[in-house]
Amino acid sequence: MISRTTQLAIELINRRSVTPEDAGCQTMMADILKPLGFDIESMVFHDTTNMWARKGNDGPVFCFAGHTDVVPTGDVSKWKTDPFNAEIIDGYLYGRGAADMKGSLAAMLVATERFVNEHPQHKGSIAFLITSDEEGPFINGTVKVIETLQARNESIDWALVGEPSSTHKLGDIVKNGRRGSLTAEVTVKGIQGHVAYPHLADNPIHKAAPALAQLATTHWDSGNEFFPPTSFQIANIHAGTGAPNVVPGDCYVQFNFRYSTEVSADELTQRVAQTLDQHQLDYDIQWTYNGSPFLTANGELLEATKQAIEEVTGYATDPQTSGGTSDGRFIAPTGAQVIELGPVNATIHKINECVKVDDLDVLTDVYQRLLEKLLC
Amino acid sequence: MISRTTQLAIELINRRSVTPEDAGCQTMMADILKPLGFDIESMVFHDTTNMWARKGNDGPVFCFAGHTDVVPTGDVSKWKTDPFNAEIIDGYLYGRGAADMKGSLAAMLVATERFVNEHPQHKGSIAFLITSDEEGPFINGTVKVIETLQARNESIDWALVGEPSSTHKLGDIVKNGRRGSLTAEVTVKGIQGHVAYPHLADNPIHKAAPALAQLATTHWDSGNEFFPPTSFQIANIHAGTGAPNVVPGDCYVQFNFRYSTEVSADELTQRVAQTLDQHQLDYDIQWTYNGSPFLTANGELLEATKQAIEEVTGYATDPQTSGGTSDGRFIAPTGAQVIELGPVNATIHKINECVKVDDLDVLTDVYQRLLEKLLC
Repeated sequence: MISRTTQLAIELINRRSVTPEDAGCQTMMADILKPLGFDIESMVFHDTTNMWARKGNDGPVFCFAGHTDVVPTGDVSKWKTDPFNAEIIDGYLYGRGAADMKGSLAAMLVATERFVNEHPQHKGSIAFLITSDEEGPFINGTVKVIETLQARNESIDWALVGEPSSTHKLGDIVKNGRRGSLTAEVTVKGIQGHVAYPHLADNPIHKAAPALAQLATTHWDSGNEFFPPTSFQIANIHAGTGAPNVVPGDCYVQFNFRYSTEVSADELTQRVAQTLDQHQLDYDIQWTYNGSPFLTANGELLEATKQAIEEVTGYATDPQTSGGTSDGRFIAPTGAQVIELGPVNATIHKINECVKVDDLDVLTDVYQRLLEKLLC
Repeated sequence: MISRTTQLAIELINRRSVTPEDAGCQTMMADILKPLGFDIESMVFHDTTNMWARKGNDGPVFCFAGHTDVVPTGDVSKWKTDPFNAEIIDGYLYGRGAADMKGSLAAMLVATERFVNEHPQHKGSIAFLITSDEEGPFINGTVKVIETLQARNESIDWALVGEPSSTHKLGDIVKNGRRGSLTAEVTVKGIQGHVAYPHLADNPIHKAAPALAQLATTHWDSGNEFFPPTSFQIANIHAGTGAPNVVPGDCYVQFNFRYSTEVSADELTQRVAQTLDQHQLDYDIQWTYNGSPFLTANGELLEATKQAIEEVTGYATDPQTSGGTSDGRFIAPTGAQVIELGPVNATIHKINECVKVDDLDVLTDVYQRLLEKLLC
């Protein structure tokens, strides 16, 4: 006898929705939400399918945010199950997206069903902001839906993103912010030549090395109460023709910042330029802004989430801002309070992704309690 | 009306002898040398054809050294002629190997013909040490011939290598030595991870950068009267998965020393290890010894070469040790005096390799004068 949340999670997992495919997941969700009184808007931008569903016309607006797309399976032969044919084994539900984040979507749906049935006259509005490109280039997903909402002055007060925030047990950690992410691609230019005639060449690796050494040891900030210190990591470096006797003409370097609210992207780009200029490098640089840091330091949403978790599970949660990026970075700049709460993330993006079946029901209870605290 | 040297150069160029192919060049040379009284030995080692030809049993032994193999043509469509069908255009002979070094081989043959015909009772011996792998891995060529000669106590007193030493006009520069060459491949080890969790990773690029910066600015020696300072060049560096969010697990670096007689290969490897250890790197290193430096600082060969050039051309030559390696490095350790003298090297290894036709005749005269000075 499996729960309705688990049943819906299975139905979602069995839809092969590798980014940017939605594979009918949002239609399935809409079919559940419509009878509850939700207005459904499908927003398709290029290859991406998004859904904005809302019940109620008044504020405050509580929004469940999430994504139906999943990352590729990797080598299917290494899975113990078919990744798109969900199976329960020893109390765990296996399948691609079980933890990230079709389990969360199922819990949101069931929590909403129960809440609306028990509190048909709830205050405010409930919304769902669902995309199919969270795992991809995040160009035609949440960003575009938020732009559409802002253009018509429709705002979100509280956003609960279903990202798998938990580490050891359901709800032990919620994310109340995320660091910013900023990537640079630098080409340091030199003059190609033969190693036997070094005076005719100008080695770009030699020129880049001290600058990179300095960037790698720079203290960017000390972080703050909510954020760890800003970190700098060189992810890629390439130079050379392969031959041992040729000085290469240029050196390609790609590095990434994960940054706190103590610095801005502009400040980081300026400080990098200062370092490169100080080393008198001739270079091209191209920056990619992956998202600003955001923080929900306090407020009704964080308080209600803490209480809901403790009331349902018996233990306290720990708000953190560590880890990778999420679509929360696109919602927070509108002024919304944003919290991420979902299942244990140990297996996400891996072979044999799975979620504890009992956790899906606990998560459903927490989401329902959250709605009660905020909209009753 | 073209000279015999030019005619022989054309016949050699038209043989498609890309390393390690000889394509019949040595047989052609043997057919000219045999009637002059040379004993011919073909020494084939694996894919490489070598020829040791000697006229006379007494010392001193004067040896013309060279190679019949040529580098690949590159994009044939960019050549103004067929690289293996030599043509004279506006006083220049075009074809792969024209300057490096089939022109020199032709000049050696004609100089020898003339000298032997004019001085049938010359003193000492004349030899040819010719290989087909100078441009390749130099494993089965001159090295093996020298080993064979040494095993039977046959020695060379004076070796004239036909490498294209000239820069602006024929004979303006001769090489009386070459720097040593030493290559290292280093893999600096770190711990792969996600850039969002830098405390769980250990970035090998960050660890390598200050060590490389230090190696690039190290003063290895000051050179000496005959050699420029030892130079260090990083030729290749590679790290990274391509993804901007992954800290790579290791960093590959390849660098090369061109070193003077002021340091030894052992000293360089020790000093590199000290620097890497000082930066507390975890690394693997593999060294390739490409050849020790050699020097013919003075002696009969250098004197005779200087005089021969000045008497034939009217200007003085300049002995240098700059530039890449040559097979001279394998002959010099036997105790032989070694000088490199050949045509202008402006087009070697390039599209439209060529040599001035008149220079081939001047080179023939210089080689002949050299034989007269040393063996009459």
